[in-house]
Amino acid sequence: MEMGKSFTKQEAAVLEEIIFNRRDVRGNHFSQKEVGDEILDKLLSAAIHAPSVGFSQPWEFVVIKNDAIKQQVKESFNEENQKAKLLFKNEKEDLSPNNEKESLYARLKLEGITEAPLNLAVFYKPSASPVLGQTSMKEAGLYSVVCAIQNIWLMARALNIGVGWVSILDPEKVKCILNAPPQNQLIAYLCIGWVDKFLHRPELEELNWEKRKEKQAVVYYDTYL
Amino acid sequence: MEMGKSFTKQEAAVLEEIIFNRRDVRGNHFSQKEVGDEILDKLLSAAIHAPSVGFSQPWEFVVIKNDAIKQQVKESFNEENQKAKLLFKNEKEDLSPNNEKESLYARLKLEGITEAPLNLAVFYKPSASPVLGQTSMKEAGLYSVVCAIQNIWLMARALNIGVGWVSILDPEKVKCILNAPPQNQLIAYLCIGWVDKFLHRPELEELNWEKRKEKQAVVYYDTYL
Repeated sequence: MEMGKSFTKQEAAVLEEIIFNRRDVRGNHFSQKEVGDEILDKLLSAAIHAPSVGFSQPWEFVVIKNDAIKQQVKESFNEENQKAKLLFKNEKEDLSPNNEKESLYARLKLEGITEAPLNLAVFYKPSASPVLGQTSMKEAGLYSVVCAIQNIWLMARALNIGVGWVSILDPEKVKCILNAPPQNQLIAYLCIGWVDKFLHRPELEELNWEKRKEKQAVVYYDTYL
Repeated sequence: MEMGKSFTKQEAAVLEEIIFNRRDVRGNHFSQKEVGDEILDKLLSAAIHAPSVGFSQPWEFVVIKNDAIKQQVKESFNEENQKAKLLFKNEKEDLSPNNEKESLYARLKLEGITEAPLNLAVFYKPSASPVLGQTSMKEAGLYSVVCAIQNIWLMARALNIGVGWVSILDPEKVKCILNAPPQNQLIAYLCIGWVDKFLHRPELEELNWEKRKEKQAVVYYDTYL
């Protein structure tokens, strides 16, 4: 009887190390070195082996190497980030009267759209007919696509390739730039490339923007009460 | 200079094998054998090392072992699945006049809530203040939680533990059963346990409910046009 592959403790430890060493990489750490087709193929294979609700595989991927297209996406980032800067200026003034953190947001490098040799726009494509498992929680379709993205991110890290997820974008503008079908939904815009280094800790932790939460602070047993 | 860990080709191949062998496990394949605390701890560690927008770590986990609570969740599944059955009865009648698939949905085992020794409800907890990276695409917070879930799923598979994601639930009823704070959003309800076997292919592929999509059918270059 076929029981399915049994993994060893050493193999589980490899996965744990990949998970612990995965980072969000921004433009200040990408190198210009091209990402080969063999690597792109491995990333996409990892993606399409993600779980999906009702085995619907509701994902579509746009691989972007064209500089003019990247530049248009970068313009959407710039517009959205201008708005965001104002939010955080006000926010951090409230929190830190010593003004130390006020301008931190403005100094952060938050994307690598033009620096990364490869960009990947990841879309959810809704089904025209009912999908098994998606009848009570419609959003499960979106979540399938996110599972594919996390597979890409981990596989990239295992191949020593950096990934950064840019969410400071107007998704409708990005759809328009890429001529996406109107029913598709942009889930993520990823910047992908070789890196000069992977940081030891998440950059926002290093900069003390946010602290790492302890496990016991986020785990409950049987009930929230 | 600290460059960050460099992984070998063999280590990347281990991750690839874990990704390819991950399955959604339902009640017909769970064993009653208890899942030890050491394993639960490894799953939760994998979860909290997922990427999160602005390092916001917006996840909360409810570990459920209590049979009465599982039974209440199972009742929500039963109610939602009754509604779903009607949808698929009509749907499959349209598609297959030979009646072969009509009753397939009703015969599928779609969850393992009471069979799995461990259930895990995973929530998104919104932030009261603006989150870096979440200002243009609010949904990025939900997606961070899904990345944590995919980390759990892969780590479980590497430890030879099965996971099934149940989305045929009324999320508001589950919140009520678990006394969840009103602002929290249920992202996933997972059934976790040792298994008698892992299927070679996804069950819905084996049963020909859906076919696996080819990579070239879901990948575009630079534009959808």
